[in-house]
Amino acid sequence: MEIVGELINASRQPIKEAIEAQDTDYIKKVAKDQEDHGANFIDVNAGVFADKESEYLKWLISNVQEVVSVPCCIDSPNPKAIEDTLETHKGIPLINSISLETERYDKLLPILSNSDYKVVALCISDKGMPDGVDEIMANADKLINGLTGANVPINHIYIDPLVKPISVKDSHGVEALDSIQRIMKEYPGVHTVWGNSNLSFGVPKRWILNQVLAVAAITRGLDAAILNPLDKRLIAFITAAETLAGKDECCMNYMKAYRKKKFEV
Amino acid sequence: MEIVGELINASRQPIKEAIEAQDTDYIKKVAKDQEDHGANFIDVNAGVFADKESEYLKWLISNVQEVVSVPCCIDSPNPKAIEDTLETHKGIPLINSISLETERYDKLLPILSNSDYKVVALCISDKGMPDGVDEIMANADKLINGLTGANVPINHIYIDPLVKPISVKDSHGVEALDSIQRIMKEYPGVHTVWGNSNLSFGVPKRWILNQVLAVAAITRGLDAAILNPLDKRLIAFITAAETLAGKDECCMNYMKAYRKKKFEV
Repeated sequence: MEIVGELINASRQPIKEAIEAQDTDYIKKVAKDQEDHGANFIDVNAGVFADKESEYLKWLISNVQEVVSVPCCIDSPNPKAIEDTLETHKGIPLINSISLETERYDKLLPILSNSDYKVVALCISDKGMPDGVDEIMANADKLINGLTGANVPINHIYIDPLVKPISVKDSHGVEALDSIQRIMKEYPGVHTVWGNSNLSFGVPKRWILNQVLAVAAITRGLDAAILNPLDKRLIAFITAAETLAGKDECCMNYMKAYRKKKFEV
Repeated sequence: MEIVGELINASRQPIKEAIEAQDTDYIKKVAKDQEDHGANFIDVNAGVFADKESEYLKWLISNVQEVVSVPCCIDSPNPKAIEDTLETHKGIPLINSISLETERYDKLLPILSNSDYKVVALCISDKGMPDGVDEIMANADKLINGLTGANVPINHIYIDPLVKPISVKDSHGVEALDSIQRIMKEYPGVHTVWGNSNLSFGVPKRWILNQVLAVAAITRGLDAAILNPLDKRLIAFITAAETLAGKDECCMNYMKAYRKKKFEV
């Protein structure tokens, strides 16, 4: 599974402070730590700084790319901020995110069209969050058709069905899992991704629900997730879940993790 | 989920010794401990004593039923041993197990016919273990049709698709999970069950694979499992998996487990 390291997000207080202080060492350390622990992308998010979002995103990208070889996941609901930063990023970033919301869609689609960019596509529209698996699938279908129609390769598209809190409705877990299974079956080659901690908003001991969600989702086909790669327990269970899901030839990754004592959690 | 407490099995050395010494106190303690930790059935297995299996099973059942109020799961591949013990058991036991193997099927079906007994039905035939989901489904279909045709209520049938070791073939996990999902969808009212530790034969740190299997299977519909109810970590994750699977109204069981510190694992 591809891991998007979630730690460089200005909604986290230490990151916000490091950005304000222009503390390059701290940002570089958090970036490097995540790469060293297996992150395939380093998420950068400066959304809390409304006026300076583009400036700070560029600063984050430059600093992150000085120390890691994996690309960034440029994380903003603001298409202008994303556009402003694309020249700063070396290599192919993961753009996070497009959606069916008209303004966002219309501004980002021309940027993505005929490009090499990878993109997270949120199953949300002007009507708001989707309600139930069928609405998620209808939104996923529009996004995939729209993006592939603009010559974005299907394997550059990461559909996010949007996990909603289980504390709000008992069926939110089932909806999320069933959506992953259907998307991966009906659109071969596409990726699925989500913010793995959204399910557990509002309940205690969130790590347990986060962990069972990741495990169950991997066996449905989820092949990317935005999470903390430094969470050793979560990573151990993701490794075992991939073995269970038949994505580990002859249990070789499992045995490697065992020998490296990654299961001592 | 219904838990079949697996500990009173003579293949475990302390149980074998307790049976040989006719140590009623030890057997009663293991039975009571399992009930106290949520077991819905207490498995009794004396299969290692070929000549005395019936005698020892009756002794186990009598002692177990002196201290617990949940029924036994009478566990033997030998239909004669099962038949010998049925009069000893008070209430409705879970018979473990019938299969499509001709001798076993022909001897047990008349006993089950028009009875109140619950029964584990293994998806194995005279051809041996099933190979792949379609063969599992074909065997499940024959078992369900045969048993319901003999007036066994569908909700008394526990289909076991037989988990095979992932160390033997990468796809054994996927086969097991897909089988559960199909059985529960195609035969409403039936139960599914398995020995949850079979997947991990031959690999180290078996508890991690056992745990991810239980979690993923619960989200596919598995509603019974033969396992150790004293394994606090496994039980904690089963609780969270049931919440994820939408089987926990308003997260009430999750919150109850949290307040009782069941997630301190």
